[in-house]
This record gives sequence, C-alpha cells and structure tokens, in this order.
Amino acid sequence: MTTELQPLLDHLITDHDHAVKRMCDLLAIPSVSTDPAYADDVKRAARWHAEDFKQLGLETHVLEGGGHPAVVARTTDAIVEDPASPRVLFYGHYDVQPPDPLELWTTPAFEPTIRDGKVYARGACDDKGQVMMFVEALRAYLTTGRKLPCHVTLLIEGEEECGSVTLPKVMADHKDLLAADLCVVSDTSMWEGKAGPAPAITYALRGLVYYDLKLYGPSRDLHSGVYGGTLPNPATVLARVLGKLFDKENRVTIPGFYNDVAELTAEERATWDTLGFDESQYLGDVGAEPYGEAGFSTLERRWARPSCDVNGLYGGYMGEGAKTVIPAFAGAKVSFRIPANMDPHKLSEQFENWIQSHDVGNCRWELTNHGVAHPVATPTDSPWVDAASRAIEQVTGKPPVLVREGATIPVVADFKTELGLDTLLIGFGLNSDSIHSPDEHFGLDRFLLGCKCHAALLASLGSE
Amino acid sequence: MTTELQPLLDHLITDHDHAVKRMCDLLAIPSVSTDPAYADDVKRAARWHAEDFKQLGLETHVLEGGGHPAVVARTTDAIVEDPASPRVLFYGHYDVQPPDPLELWTTPAFEPTIRDGKVYARGACDDKGQVMMFVEALRAYLTTGRKLPCHVTLLIEGEEECGSVTLPKVMADHKDLLAADLCVVSDTSMWEGKAGPAPAITYALRGLVYYDLKLYGPSRDLHSGVYGGTLPNPATVLARVLGKLFDKENRVTIPGFYNDVAELTAEERATWDTLGFDESQYLGDVGAEPYGEAGFSTLERRWARPSCDVNGLYGGYMGEGAKTVIPAFAGAKVSFRIPANMDPHKLSEQFENWIQSHDVGNCRWELTNHGVAHPVATPTDSPWVDAASRAIEQVTGKPPVLVREGATIPVVADFKTELGLDTLLIGFGLNSDSIHSPDEHFGLDRFLLGCKCHAALLASLGSE
Repeated sequence: MTTELQPLLDHLITDHDHAVKRMCDLLAIPSVSTDPAYADDVKRAARWHAEDFKQLGLETHVLEGGGHPAVVARTTDAIVEDPASPRVLFYGHYDVQPPDPLELWTTPAFEPTIRDGKVYARGACDDKGQVMMFVEALRAYLTTGRKLPCHVTLLIEGEEECGSVTLPKVMADHKDLLAADLCVVSDTSMWEGKAGPAPAITYALRGLVYYDLKLYGPSRDLHSGVYGGTLPNPATVLARVLGKLFDKENRVTIPGFYNDVAELTAEERATWDTLGFDESQYLGDVGAEPYGEAGFSTLERRWARPSCDVNGLYGGYMGEGAKTVIPAFAGAKVSFRIPANMDPHKLSEQFENWIQSHDVGNCRWELTNHGVAHPVATPTDSPWVDAASRAIEQVTGKPPVLVREGATIPVVADFKTELGLDTLLIGFGLNSDSIHSPDEHFGLDRFLLGCKCHAALLASLGSE
Repeated sequence: MTTELQPLLDHLITDHDHAVKRMCDLLAIPSVSTDPAYADDVKRAARWHAEDFKQLGLETHVLEGGGHPAVVARTTDAIVEDPASPRVLFYGHYDVQPPDPLELWTTPAFEPTIRDGKVYARGACDDKGQVMMFVEALRAYLTTGRKLPCHVTLLIEGEEECGSVTLPKVMADHKDLLAADLCVVSDTSMWEGKAGPAPAITYALRGLVYYDLKLYGPSRDLHSGVYGGTLPNPATVLARVLGKLFDKENRVTIPGFYNDVAELTAEERATWDTLGFDESQYLGDVGAEPYGEAGFSTLERRWARPSCDVNGLYGGYMGEGAKTVIPAFAGAKVSFRIPANMDPHKLSEQFENWIQSHDVGNCRWELTNHGVAHPVATPTDSPWVDAASRAIEQVTGKPPVLVREGATIPVVADFKTELGLDTLLIGFGLNSDSIHSPDEHFGLDRFLLGCKCHAALLASLGSE
C-alpha cells in the first residue's frame, strides 16, 4: 500500500480548502447536547453527517436510542479492495459543550472564523474537527476512484458531552451493525513535551462521575436579618459539606476513595520520565502553580490519580451588589475523574453515602447523577498499535509516543464490554485549544496532518 | 389633644381607599437601588415623594449626595400649632430589594395587587407601605384643616437596600436641615407572640457586614479532565474556605469574633420569657427546625447573638445538566448580623484577615465590602418611649411591647452619631410578609392601624 499513499496525501493537500469549508459548515450548527433549547440543532447536525455519508456511498443509519440520534455508516463490499480485510469502527461525536460565557468569545461560538491558520468555533477541536479528519481521509479514497484498503464503520453520536447516556443501549441493540475488529477514536491530544507537539497514541483514560447536588432549606427565600442564625441556611451548609471533601494534603476524604486505584509501575514511571513533560508550559499557560494530592507529580496527578472538582456553584443572590437573603436552596456541580481500576458505580455509592453522613439541619438533598464512565486501559502490545504506529511514522517520519489522558471518553469502556473492541486513541488536539472554554479552536495544519495520518492508517490496517 | 384624636382617626378610616391608591402608585415604581438597570426608576420614586410633600405644603428638598437621592421635607411654623413643640424626624426608604426570582411571584412584583385584604408588591411592607402610614397620618392633619401638634421632618432615602452608603455624608452635610429632638422609623415588625400580633417598640437592632468574595484561579475556564487534580480550582477552594467558617457547635471560627458581644442581662432574659415567643410558628412557617450557635435559644440567636450567612454562591457552570469545567473564578456573598457591642469595622478587618489566612494555591481573592452598619441599642427609659407607648395604647387599648430586632437599619446608628438622636422603631410588619422574597405583601388592616398610631403619636409627642 505504501507506494500508493503519496498521491492520496497529495490529494488531501489540494483538497484542503474544500475540506475546511465542509468542517465549517458542520461547526456552524449549535449542537449543544446538554441544553434542551438546542434539541433541533442537535438533530440537524446528525442529519448533516448522514447526508454526507450517503453521498460517499456508505450504507447509512440514523439510530434513535431514546436520546439524541447516533449516525452509523458502513462501507459496502463493493467499495472495499479486499473483502477479507479487517473492519475499523471509527467513533466520534457531533455534539458540543455549551458556549457560555458568550461574552468571552472573540467571534461568536457558532460562526466559525479562520484567524492565524486556526478555525475558531465551539467543537473545532472537541470533536467535530477531529471527526472530519477521518471523514476526509475516507473521502480522499472514494472521490479519487480508489477502493478502501479496509472495511470502515463510522459511529458518530450526539450525547458525548452529556455522558453518552443512551449509547450503551444503542450498542447493545445493534451489535451486528457495529461489529468490527478494532475501534479508532480521534478525541484526544497530541503529546506536548518540551520538544514540541508529537503525534501520540493514548492507551488509558480516566473515567468520570458527575453529580448535581442541590440542598433545599426554607420553603422560600428569607430575610437574613430576621432569620439569620436561627435555622439552617442551605448555601452555608452546602459550603460546609463541600469544604470537607479534602484534607490538608489535598486528598479526598470520602472513605475508601483510593482503595482501587491502580498503582503506577516502575516501568511506566520510567517511560514517563523520558516524555519531557513540560510542567511550566502546561500550568503556566493558564496562570496556575502545581496544587494537588500530596506525594505525586503533576503528570501522575493528571494521568494516574483520581481528582475531584467543583464544576459549578449556584444559589441565593448571584447578581451585582448585595441582597441579604437566606436562600431556599443552593447547589453545586461536583465531578470526579477516576483512573483504572476505580469503579464509577462504587464511587457514586460512596459519595452519596458520604454526602448523607453530614449534619445539614433539616435541609433536604436532591442528588442527581449526570453520568458515569469507566476508566480505560488498552494493552500496548496489540498488532493494531503497531499498525497505527507505522502509519503515523509514514506521514511524519517519527513513531508516535504512547501516553495516557486525564480526560474521559465515556463510551470507550463500552466498546470493550459491549463490542469486545480495543480502542486506539489517535488525536490531534493541543492543550491550548481551549476545548470546553471560550475561543475553542483547532489548527488547520493539524487538521491536515490528521487527514493524512488517517489515510495512512486505513492503508496500514488493510495490510494487517 | 386626646379629645381631638377621634375625628382624625375617623377621617383616616373614610379616606382609607384613597390612601391605599396612593400607596399602590408608589409601589408600582420599580425602585431597585442595588441594580444600576433601575437607576431611572429610583429617581422617579424620589420625585414621587417630593411632589407629594410639596402638595402637602412642606418645605421640600431633594438631596443628591453622590448616590441615589434622599428626599427631605419639613413643616414650616405656619402649619404647626405650637412653635415651641418638639421636632420629630421620620426616616424611611423608598428603595426596594431586587424582585428576583421573578417566576415565583403570583402577580408581578411591580403591579400592586390586592388579594384577601393584603397588597402584594415588592416594597409593600419594606418599606414603602410603612412610610406611607406616616405620610397619611400627616396628610390627615393637613387636609382636614388642622395644624400639626409638633414639628415634623421627613427623610426618605433611596439607598437603604444597598447599605445607605452616601446617607451619612448627607446627614453630615445637612445637620441643620435634619436637626430634631428624636427620630421615628417604621421599618420593623409587630411583635408576634403566642397571643397574636401586638404593636411593639423596637429598642435594639443588629448591625451588618456584607462581603462579596470572588476567588480567581486559572486565566480561563478549563477542561476538568485535562487539568483536574493538578491545579487549584477556585470553586473547590472557595467551598473549602467557606466550609471552615463554623465549628461543630455552629460557632463562627473567626478569631475574636465573639469578644465584644454584649451578654444578655438576667432582667432582659426574664422579660423575654414573658413575651410568649412562638418558636414553632416562627420556624415552622418556613419549614425549618432550630439550628444555630450551641447554648442559646432561638430568640437569643435572633436578637442578641451574631450570625453569619452565605447569601449567594456563583461560579462555573450553573445551567441545566453537566459541564465538566474548572471555572476561572467562583464567588460568594457572605454577611454577618452583629448585636451590640460589636464593631462592624473591626469585624471587617478580622474577616479579611481570616480569609487571607487560608491556603488557596495561587488563586487570588477580590474582596468587596458592600456595606457595614453598627448595631443599635436605644435606652428604654426616655420620655419619648413613654409618649409613643401612650399613643399606641390610645389607639389599641394596650401598651406596646418592648422588643429587639435581628435585622439591620443601617442608618439608625448614624442618627445617634451624626445627629445625636435616639430612635423609636415602631413598625407594623409581620414575619410572614415575605419581605426580600417573592410575594412580599402588607395587610391593609395593619396599614390603617399604622396610620392611626402615627396620628396619635404626633399628638402625643406634641404634648411632651
């Protein structure tokens, strides 16, 4: 296959502007999955993909699993070179995070804008831009009269940013449709060591547990002069409970929290030492200094240790100036990132028990679990990792590095349990891409690099 | 004077519907002083009072002290029976709390509506309705051809709900204009013992210290998977600090916090025991059970002990569902109610020092003091208290009870320090009036009672 690759890569270069235009069309759709106000736009993004896949000649399904639809598209034997070749399942998501705070965007979140060789829009990097790299690789084969070197199934879902709640059911209900030999995902970052960004294959992800904790107190907002000091104030009590989440060593105090955390091996630690992790760039870019669980390095805290964050606080008077009120309720969004081998369901139970163990007067909790995800750790010695490494080396001249990721892709664990698939995470994001933040963006050079690597990957997988 | 009182009280009854109409005109003006969006409406409310006072033949001034205007109106000798009679300064405020949460109002906050003998509107009880009781008492004398039994000065300000920031300067700059023999305020409640509501003279108020604490962390919102566990999350850290405000006994942990609190005398405790305080009604109406500083009763916590409340929490993702973000900042509104003899400036310093004493990684605090107010305790043995007691007894047949109040009227301490005046607090609110809350209201029967008591009070003060 190698000899045939160069003309394909050349085509990706000449077609680049068109590919960027297609990506921007998709980015202009505000497919925010966590907010019901955007429900129609989420559907529109699913239709956009389905129509594109049909035009490429793929057998296309829009699966409604009770939540936002998932788009599944499969190559038919007619467009694959060798019917005996393996099948790759490419997974991505077309839904995006909410764009707020809106006022901090230089240009509107859903008006994709090119500045300094980057496209700025919500979803540019997470994950629409990265999905389109794979689609463009596929398109390059099919629109230049080639057959594909392996079978391909695309699974592009619309609920990743709200925990992929219904996708496991979709997987369970459509095992035949989704059957494959391995899974490929582009929703991660390149490795950014002191030597600069390098393509990476990510072999482990942290899982997630996300809660909304709402504490109800008096039946209505009260005057803090008339009632202050005589009854439980839910905002005060909520802060008192949250304040007990950590000890002085920044360790989480929930009983049993660390029991199942897989300890780092000496070999893994040694490999990580060679990666040239640049702590001052990673933290310095956002104005932070190292702060976390005592006894671990920043990279260990990020990749191999569980974390706990308050993602939001709300309740009482949140406007300008002063209002002397005892609020009827207060709330917090609290989430955990959990490395192998923590069990998100076990942690959910531990956390709820811990919450309920506190004195809150006669206030009442409303605990809402907004999603759990298992951590993932894929074997690094499979032939697919070798194939992917060869493909990336063909394009870049260097083998990729093998890394972990602190973030979560909720369904990767499900690919293993539901479909028996190991996953290769090959992403082209950078930490500075501001995903989940205002001014999210994606470098067009990395977009092109991703298109090329995926084109090479298809060839490389076909030769296995 | 006593013999002449009855026709005046009869007039207040026949004129009641017109008086209610006038009050509703004022209540329809959304004079929210804490929110700049309402600045024009605040001015409009000041003009409304000024025009009314001019029509009553009072010498009227609108004082601009740098903030929202204060309206001052004085009787001239021509309309006072005896030039040698004392002068009473009536203080009130025409500004109101913000109306939010708007969706919890049965009828809009600024469309005054009569239901079941009560007027519903923001400011109905706090304080427009109560101000208008005094104005109607005055009007009853002047529109029935009578002269006033004593000199009167009205001072109606527009910044009470945001801490009366510029009023002390107005007082200092206009000492001659505001000179009087005593001050009367109607911004408090009737006493609600087990025997039902009874007119009360309030002799002590708690002071106030109000802060907005904003903690800044990373330079932008971050993905909690990529960064979680490696840097200080300001929402988490804020909760950790606020969580340390109280010990297990619900005592505030700020060093020196209780040092200056005046202990209750045995005599005061004995008097309070006779008041028939109905704890189950006070707390039960809002669905709460007693909760507060160990070792004190609910009434003691409310009237004689300092309290600390989180009035609001904000920051990070506050919308529906989940957003996995480490916020760039988080904030809290925190206030204290302080009884005699605590010093709000000393507490502000203690609190700021306490805040700064915590480990917050390299997060940065922005501390905004939204106002301080001294506590107040007026002697109960002055001739003015006797005169007010006689007046109330004339109208109701019973002497008023002498009580404290947990809430704050920021300027009452300033009347003492700036103008040398003791203050009589004679209010007709009820705890169930939902002041500072949705569906604030005021009973029209109490409005009429207040009009009568103030008419009698003017006569009674004139005979001193």
